[in-house]
Amino acid sequence: MPRHFEQAPGLYDAAVPETEGYVFNQTMMRIKDPERSLDFYTRVMGMRLVRKLEFPEMKFTLYFLGYLDDREAQRVPEDNAHRTTYTFGREAMLELTHNWGTENDPDFAYHNGNDEPQGFGHIGVAVPDVYGACDRFAELDVEFVKKPDDGKMKGLAFIKDPDGYWIEILQPDMLEKQRKQ
Amino acid sequence: MPRHFEQAPGLYDAAVPETEGYVFNQTMMRIKDPERSLDFYTRVMGMRLVRKLEFPEMKFTLYFLGYLDDREAQRVPEDNAHRTTYTFGREAMLELTHNWGTENDPDFAYHNGNDEPQGFGHIGVAVPDVYGACDRFAELDVEFVKKPDDGKMKGLAFIKDPDGYWIEILQPDMLEKQRKQ
Repeated sequence: MPRHFEQAPGLYDAAVPETEGYVFNQTMMRIKDPERSLDFYTRVMGMRLVRKLEFPEMKFTLYFLGYLDDREAQRVPEDNAHRTTYTFGREAMLELTHNWGTENDPDFAYHNGNDEPQGFGHIGVAVPDVYGACDRFAELDVEFVKKPDDGKMKGLAFIKDPDGYWIEILQPDMLEKQRKQ
Repeated sequence: MPRHFEQAPGLYDAAVPETEGYVFNQTMMRIKDPERSLDFYTRVMGMRLVRKLEFPEMKFTLYFLGYLDDREAQRVPEDNAHRTTYTFGREAMLELTHNWGTENDPDFAYHNGNDEPQGFGHIGVAVPDVYGACDRFAELDVEFVKKPDDGKMKGLAFIKDPDGYWIEILQPDMLEKQRKQ
């Protein structure tokens, strides 16, 4: 069986046994105000805070959030040290970094990567029903970059988190419904 | 059972049934040169290219990569439309966006979010043996931001991908070994 599912220049086709067990664990974004961001990611987006790590000597705190269903949540270690290991071994953790004090500076803002200079684009959350999800986000006064039926790409949306980072809201079968390619 | 595993201002404690089935699916970063980035993410990092989506009318291509073991790889749909749905429903996909033509502009570079203006910080890959992994990265001439024993935080590293984005290389039990908190 070939290693990849597509062809493209640059792809390395052989197995890479040295990387066995590698896990895409985390995506880190800096946040200005943890209270504002934790409210958004837990109340609006439905994530859970799995681990908080404070580094007083360096004046920052890390918040690790993720989607865990009740069954997985029951398996998460209660012991802090073991829960840290769980946090760093799991796929798809969102790491929010708070450098202390930024929340008190009215002029302070982070760069979202989509205004110039560009780089990082967005995180994306798959939802069972993109229209239902976006109706709820609108009711909760979430800011939209693109509503599901704006523009050429129907059935997917972009919202903004409290720092202005973009979150794509997508339905896994959105493209399958629209076209075959 | 409380919804979260830590306490912090802003946390929403009630269940959020409207977000059931939500999945942290993707992290998107723009890349200058797909050949260079695909080589890095498949040969050095060991990811697989699961889906490639070309949008000729808008002159960009999306590459979706992830860590799949052989068992999971055998379950990935061969049919393109179904594989797209798989790609958008799975946790922890890395989405690389190539806007056509940037690879031919010698002065073109993306912003990594750690130089000013700051925002997005890094993606992170958990590995079974951080020292072994970093020895191999060094042999492969990967650029380091921080080697595992540089600085105060021992046992974790940061490397750069071809666009200069930072990748944290961490071992899940690194903190458990260092301290209890």
